[in-house]
Amino acid sequence: MTAMAMDAAIPVMDAKGDAALCEKLFDALRAATSDGVGITRESFGVSESRALAIVENAARDGRLTTERDAGGNLVVTLPGTQPDLPFLACGSHLDSVPQGGNYDGGAGVVAGLAILTGLRRAGFAPRRTIKLFGLRGEESAWFGKAYMGSSALFGRLTSDDLASPHALTGRSLLDCMRDVGADVDSIARGEPLLDAGTVAAWVELHIEQGPVLVARELPIGIVTGIRGNVRHRTVECVGEAGHSGAVPRWLRRDAVFATAELITHLDRHWRTLLERGRDLVITTGIMGTESSEHAIARIPGNVKFSFEARSQSQETLEAFYDLFVSECASIGSERGVEFKLDRRLRSAPATMDPAWVERLRNAARALGLPDEPIPSGAGHDAAVFAHAGIPSAMIFIRNENGSHNPREDMEIADFMSGVAVMRKVLAEAAL
Amino acid sequence: MTAMAMDAAIPVMDAKGDAALCEKLFDALRAATSDGVGITRESFGVSESRALAIVENAARDGRLTTERDAGGNLVVTLPGTQPDLPFLACGSHLDSVPQGGNYDGGAGVVAGLAILTGLRRAGFAPRRTIKLFGLRGEESAWFGKAYMGSSALFGRLTSDDLASPHALTGRSLLDCMRDVGADVDSIARGEPLLDAGTVAAWVELHIEQGPVLVARELPIGIVTGIRGNVRHRTVECVGEAGHSGAVPRWLRRDAVFATAELITHLDRHWRTLLERGRDLVITTGIMGTESSEHAIARIPGNVKFSFEARSQSQETLEAFYDLFVSECASIGSERGVEFKLDRRLRSAPATMDPAWVERLRNAARALGLPDEPIPSGAGHDAAVFAHAGIPSAMIFIRNENGSHNPREDMEIADFMSGVAVMRKVLAEAAL
Repeated sequence: MTAMAMDAAIPVMDAKGDAALCEKLFDALRAATSDGVGITRESFGVSESRALAIVENAARDGRLTTERDAGGNLVVTLPGTQPDLPFLACGSHLDSVPQGGNYDGGAGVVAGLAILTGLRRAGFAPRRTIKLFGLRGEESAWFGKAYMGSSALFGRLTSDDLASPHALTGRSLLDCMRDVGADVDSIARGEPLLDAGTVAAWVELHIEQGPVLVARELPIGIVTGIRGNVRHRTVECVGEAGHSGAVPRWLRRDAVFATAELITHLDRHWRTLLERGRDLVITTGIMGTESSEHAIARIPGNVKFSFEARSQSQETLEAFYDLFVSECASIGSERGVEFKLDRRLRSAPATMDPAWVERLRNAARALGLPDEPIPSGAGHDAAVFAHAGIPSAMIFIRNENGSHNPREDMEIADFMSGVAVMRKVLAEAAL
Repeated sequence: MTAMAMDAAIPVMDAKGDAALCEKLFDALRAATSDGVGITRESFGVSESRALAIVENAARDGRLTTERDAGGNLVVTLPGTQPDLPFLACGSHLDSVPQGGNYDGGAGVVAGLAILTGLRRAGFAPRRTIKLFGLRGEESAWFGKAYMGSSALFGRLTSDDLASPHALTGRSLLDCMRDVGADVDSIARGEPLLDAGTVAAWVELHIEQGPVLVARELPIGIVTGIRGNVRHRTVECVGEAGHSGAVPRWLRRDAVFATAELITHLDRHWRTLLERGRDLVITTGIMGTESSEHAIARIPGNVKFSFEARSQSQETLEAFYDLFVSECASIGSERGVEFKLDRRLRSAPATMDPAWVERLRNAARALGLPDEPIPSGAGHDAAVFAHAGIPSAMIFIRNENGSHNPREDMEIADFMSGVAVMRKVLAEAAL
């Protein structure tokens, strides 16, 4: 079968009808889960379940099969003619942070529903089954742990994870998962609920949580990888306090000057690595002198700060971390201070499948859309699928004002461009 | 009269006897004003009065005239044969910070007492009167205002100053001054209690509050000037918060990176100015991101910090301040942040009298002591005398561990070296 023949077999998209369906679904989700300020869909809670039910009803209206899997997630199926073939999966999560926006997570589920409904309506009968997952529990805001729903699918939740208390009620994650019908016995035993070998690919559409597509004036981007990170919650710079007027520069062990120099050096290394084409972002989100010792005329003997580097490349992360440790040592020795590092935390980068990235970029170009590759700085369920060995890919939709706030602002036209790209690759792969 | 003839007329110092007297006085002061942890001599309070009484009794034992002036300060007099000549003044303050040390202030008063007692005992009858001031109220810890005792002498306390509440009791400075017998009506009217024209010079011995003499292995130093300062209590760097993973470097408006760069640039300018022989210390004693927004994964949109530059030279202060403002503007524009400055605060430097500095350095060399010139980073009563137009000078004594804490550590041998230098210049000038 040639590419031309494949294209010929895919029904034409009813862009206008699909857009209307999506807007109706977004409106229904917003109305059902508004908290007065923004959108609140509690992981493994009542408001999240309400969102699942809305999507499930829409799927049934579209004559699609629906079910709840052993993780309590919504699964919508467009059956293939060869059901033994590994199936294509798409979707995203239906929970949100407290007072969040309507699109973070929801957009990917609505996109999948529009695609499956449209293909069903057009009588598309591919060889491969396509499934849409409306996942639960992606946001870390509720239990301090992210990707709970997708992690449960692959037996990746630890007993510590399951014991995590809900931020508001204190109820354990395990109990909350049981409440929504998950098979907590299997989850607690770390048994996979989904056999990764049965999944041909995972494709996730998501709003961009950063400003890159807005700044570059691009409606969509094709995600190349999800950045991992290396972190220290607290680095402590220990110098020596003293009278600001009475200690000259050559006798100072000033923790603020040392830390400022460290951060400035890291910034310079960052710039150099970017010039050399590396993927990297670094952040010190928290920084402060000791408030119990605050005085304008006191040389600060102590500063605490957080350290975070993110990259799509594990090698870049490690190389930058080495630079960080080396700068701590050399600035420490030059300035008579010590940088004390707490436990190093890390999260591995997830590479999107190159063949699927290529398919998405080809589809974008074929549809007259830009095919800009873009890294994902934030984590996504797609990383969990990728780590489980499933070829995974993501489409980002341009979005103003970041996410995790009520001011998320995605244009429906941009969203429909992403839907068109995703529809094309899924349908082609399912043929 | 030649220098030889002058020297010949000054009685030889009984170094051993004077040291014994001083140690006895330090012990008595410590015993009477210990708080269990350190030394507490409350400005215009009972414990300060106890210290004045101890010195006054020692002065009377030494057959010196004593009185309390209109500011409630102790004045000890060694009368000259020509009482109409402007008199020579020495001394320091007898109050301390809470849980402070025994020497900050006290050393200068004990030094003066040893000198006057010794000269009296030896029958020294100079032309000029020499007076020792045991000043009250130098420390800002009690009323938030420093140099209250010396400022009152020159009519320099404002009604705001006098209304300042005591840090513990809330009682006003005016009321506390009245309690110890000060002429608060004159003080409130801003009338000088001491005619600056009647004072030939002010010489103050004080422990060094910084580590320079210790580091340079010098027992004493001759103070060239008292640093003034320019300050901002709060500079606010306003950038834009964002997701740490999702905003690349070229779109960042990171308040921590901008502030770190600012401080690093200021440090570089500082180093350059020192190399060019300028006197300067700069400090950011307080710095912090917004605690209500703290997250490792959040690009900080806001950092607050304090700014202080100190120098003996007003020109250097102004030049450095210009650099600071210019760096704020250029880093702000380069990084898309704004540095918002609160009200600029300043305190003028006080230059020690060059002729008196020279006398002290000559005396030190004549006594086989180093004559190292050294700036004073901390403020002193000597600055108030200097600003009143009185030729003023200071001797610093080597001291470990800074001041304002119970670990002040002055060697009595170093102290006696300073006493010898001060004795020589006062006696010579009084001849």
